[in-house]
Amino acid sequence: MRSPQKKIKSNLEYLRKLFIMPESPDKFIEFGHELLEMIHDFFQEKGGIHSAITLPELARIFNQTCIPDEPMLIKDVLAEIKGKVIDHSVKVGSPYYIGHMISAIPYFMILLEMIIAALNQNQVKIETAKASSFVEREFVAWLHRLVFNRPERFYQRHMQNPKVALGNITSDGTLANLTALVVAREKAFPPTKNFPGARVVGIEKALEHYGYERAVIVVSTRGHYSLKKAAGLLGLGEQNVIEIPVDEFNRMDIKRLKRKLNHLQHDSGGKAKIMAIVGIAGTTETGNIDPLPELGSISREIGAHFHVDACWGGSALLVDEYKPMLRGIEQADSVSIDAHKLLYCPMAMGIVLFRSEKDLNLIKQTSRYIIRRNSVDTGRFTIEGSRPFSCLKPWAALKIIGREGYGLLFRKARESTFAMMNLLQEAETFEVLNTPELFIITYRFLPAHVKAQISEWMSLGRSRRKGKEPREALHRLRKTNHIINALNIKLHKALRLDDTTFVSRTTLESTRYRPQKIVVLRAVLINPLTDHQILKEIIGTQKRLGGKIWKEFEPAYQKIAG
Amino acid sequence: MRSPQKKIKSNLEYLRKLFIMPESPDKFIEFGHELLEMIHDFFQEKGGIHSAITLPELARIFNQTCIPDEPMLIKDVLAEIKGKVIDHSVKVGSPYYIGHMISAIPYFMILLEMIIAALNQNQVKIETAKASSFVEREFVAWLHRLVFNRPERFYQRHMQNPKVALGNITSDGTLANLTALVVAREKAFPPTKNFPGARVVGIEKALEHYGYERAVIVVSTRGHYSLKKAAGLLGLGEQNVIEIPVDEFNRMDIKRLKRKLNHLQHDSGGKAKIMAIVGIAGTTETGNIDPLPELGSISREIGAHFHVDACWGGSALLVDEYKPMLRGIEQADSVSIDAHKLLYCPMAMGIVLFRSEKDLNLIKQTSRYIIRRNSVDTGRFTIEGSRPFSCLKPWAALKIIGREGYGLLFRKARESTFAMMNLLQEAETFEVLNTPELFIITYRFLPAHVKAQISEWMSLGRSRRKGKEPREALHRLRKTNHIINALNIKLHKALRLDDTTFVSRTTLESTRYRPQKIVVLRAVLINPLTDHQILKEIIGTQKRLGGKIWKEFEPAYQKIAG
Repeated sequence: MRSPQKKIKSNLEYLRKLFIMPESPDKFIEFGHELLEMIHDFFQEKGGIHSAITLPELARIFNQTCIPDEPMLIKDVLAEIKGKVIDHSVKVGSPYYIGHMISAIPYFMILLEMIIAALNQNQVKIETAKASSFVEREFVAWLHRLVFNRPERFYQRHMQNPKVALGNITSDGTLANLTALVVAREKAFPPTKNFPGARVVGIEKALEHYGYERAVIVVSTRGHYSLKKAAGLLGLGEQNVIEIPVDEFNRMDIKRLKRKLNHLQHDSGGKAKIMAIVGIAGTTETGNIDPLPELGSISREIGAHFHVDACWGGSALLVDEYKPMLRGIEQADSVSIDAHKLLYCPMAMGIVLFRSEKDLNLIKQTSRYIIRRNSVDTGRFTIEGSRPFSCLKPWAALKIIGREGYGLLFRKARESTFAMMNLLQEAETFEVLNTPELFIITYRFLPAHVKAQISEWMSLGRSRRKGKEPREALHRLRKTNHIINALNIKLHKALRLDDTTFVSRTTLESTRYRPQKIVVLRAVLINPLTDHQILKEIIGTQKRLGGKIWKEFEPAYQKIAG
Repeated sequence: MRSPQKKIKSNLEYLRKLFIMPESPDKFIEFGHELLEMIHDFFQEKGGIHSAITLPELARIFNQTCIPDEPMLIKDVLAEIKGKVIDHSVKVGSPYYIGHMISAIPYFMILLEMIIAALNQNQVKIETAKASSFVEREFVAWLHRLVFNRPERFYQRHMQNPKVALGNITSDGTLANLTALVVAREKAFPPTKNFPGARVVGIEKALEHYGYERAVIVVSTRGHYSLKKAAGLLGLGEQNVIEIPVDEFNRMDIKRLKRKLNHLQHDSGGKAKIMAIVGIAGTTETGNIDPLPELGSISREIGAHFHVDACWGGSALLVDEYKPMLRGIEQADSVSIDAHKLLYCPMAMGIVLFRSEKDLNLIKQTSRYIIRRNSVDTGRFTIEGSRPFSCLKPWAALKIIGREGYGLLFRKARESTFAMMNLLQEAETFEVLNTPELFIITYRFLPAHVKAQISEWMSLGRSRRKGKEPREALHRLRKTNHIINALNIKLHKALRLDDTTFVSRTTLESTRYRPQKIVVLRAVLINPLTDHQILKEIIGTQKRLGGKIWKEFEPAYQKIAG
């Protein structure tokens, strides 16, 4: 808070000095030091992951409706940031925080952010980003090769050729997916001699010209919501994202896909253009991977753009032992990957890669003043305009950590995943509901005797026996699941209140209880600081709280079980 | 470069340590110190603005087609960054760099970037961004009030109300404009009982439902290329951005606008929906401001969404003396502002504000796993998904610099603009071609005697005299302008080669020579470190090089002038 004696008067000399890195940067270093101590304390501090403060209390802290008139001292503002912001931030880097696709980050990332801010390059244009444009293109080529592994000469010819782009750096995965789909749209309604292309004339005229009534994007029910958002933005309509059910492994059901495609192509009079098929390499909810080789050949067969949303899992290609899992990704026309996920970079940066060096030319922009025709500016190919030099972070990280290092990190993540699976088994009061591939477990609290009971109902219900009994068993199973759903919602809320650990929560229709929707807890195990002891504490807390809450639900269950 | 003896072997302990802010952060501080010295040296260094290295040479430096296998030491990578990246970056913060909408930034921004990276909040969701979501909403409310100045109770009610959003933080101005236009599209084809809205059914069905053949966006010829990009993305078609010519002050010609609107609404059978009218508050090329009050009333009259692209000029509202210039902006339905422009933040951050708290609800998203219905997550309203806590920078800057401080900075920018105008006059070999409002001058090199000659031709050509002579004068004028265009392109290239100073270059159709297109140099005068002496040097260099190059063009001119 500002105290009256610290009131300072603006003057230009003071302001100008703010813009100059001081001759001897002692003051700056001093601030930097204090800041680091402050951040250090924040992470060391015992106490909640989310801070105990309530949202209404925060609303009261940040309730100034006007911009401050008078300047404040930097140190006072930093103190305010400490007290009001840092102290009430979420400790997403805590090893007890295993709820979202976020982790601790290597501390050198902070150094890289300093460089990025100090250089302040704008990647849109070579006049504002010289070496950094080349770093970006090199980084894009690295990932392109990782995914598509085209011949060495392909990269030698194209990686630094300003006439093409092998991919874009985007502000996040949503923009990466959007970029892939706008290219797919242009490929579905391409420019010809008499037709300037969808982006020029609009969707309505494009559909008309090519004789279609709609353009659809096909993805599994595990598809990220950014795809629907993209379909809405691109004027295709959210309802034209066709969701194909998944199997028990959360992978798109290929039979159903084929049936749907057949229907779209033939039974509905061929009026639907299948613009893109999207495969997922690491679903947001369960971390599972679609059958990419099958999706690749089907896409090729029907002439649809094949996009792989590998925002989560794409980086696993860095490590040989994960390559078989991602087989088929090299058949994609485009692939999106997030740097702030498994490349362990700070928020936020996406990457979209196109197998063909020609694809991004379909959406190339020019303008008189900033990206002249025949320019070499990166901004010609991107949806975003002004862009920071974000790619320095993963570019440097790949050097500092190396493929070897990422290998160790992913191995550690896999170990944590197995460790957690074992602990959940041992605890006996949990049920795991997916088969983890990329470090994500979905599970629920379920008392041992209830688990035994519903197994019995399930085998009875699915047996070939006829009559009332199997029907009755399935009915009881559904009612019990309903109770267990409520229990897990309540448990998740209790965990949030306890706040010493954090997992997230979602609802899946794809478990062994399908089609019934099951509430699950979701753990993402990528923080290398999360060790076995911590996992034990996390599960211990869940077991303890779950057991307590179960008591409230037990009578209702007894009524069902009889 | 890596030397063999420094080869390090990956091990998990080493890697884990990278993820922990060291107990005593000495090593980190040491790196930080070195980095700052490095950056300091870079800025102090004499030598070119863009570094002398050629693009092909850079292409050879960044030509590794594979991701490195083995890890490197942080200090070696930092040394590589220094030698290969920093040394060949563009000194966009140099006071001699007055060519783009970029400036030196206050050094405390680097401290803020450290905090942002260390906290690593993801603004998409309250579970990953607690206090930072409230900071964002407070900051958005500040700017909303600055632009729309709605009553205090409006802000008290809405600023921290998670059911609505007064605006979004976006990755840049392009995304801010895109957000405004997707909302405009939804308002043009709104959901009703029988119609779920354009985003759900797509453009084709939306046009059909409402009985239109196309939806258009109207903007002046000074409109930023992001608007065309947005029209393409949104499925409206780039050709449906209707450009209205500007007057000599680079402001949209209202008469022509009315004529065009009339034609669109009546003569063409009313089949065009006028979706949005875009006013510009600070055009990219000339920094001029459209007649916003007129655009506001016309938009209201015809029921079009009125968007003001104030990416450049919006921040000027911070200072009372600029408010009259921006009068009418408060009538907008939406306004976009860039933080990395006149708020002096590092790359990149945009802001889009909506006058009505209901507008952003039209594009609200939900999903099972990340932004549940009834959630309070900011991500429901944004085009982007994962987003960094960027708004900490302008939020803190408004406290540290204050309105007063921004007032001083903008006054300094205006002084620099006037100073440069005067120096251009005094030098006698330049012609200024716009009337600067917001710190941008467009001008060209033009020898004094040629200037006198073309004035003469112009008055003769535009006189009421009939016959061959006036026609002949105009012909000579055009041919001379053609030569002067070539001269200024060559001068700009020579300046790039000299590289001690930097202005940009563009082509305008709106000068006193309209409709002939004139090549102009473009100076953006916002760096508070650019003083009078530096401006003198910049213009001195241009005069010297321009004079030299003129000799090549003189014979051709003599032929015309006779």
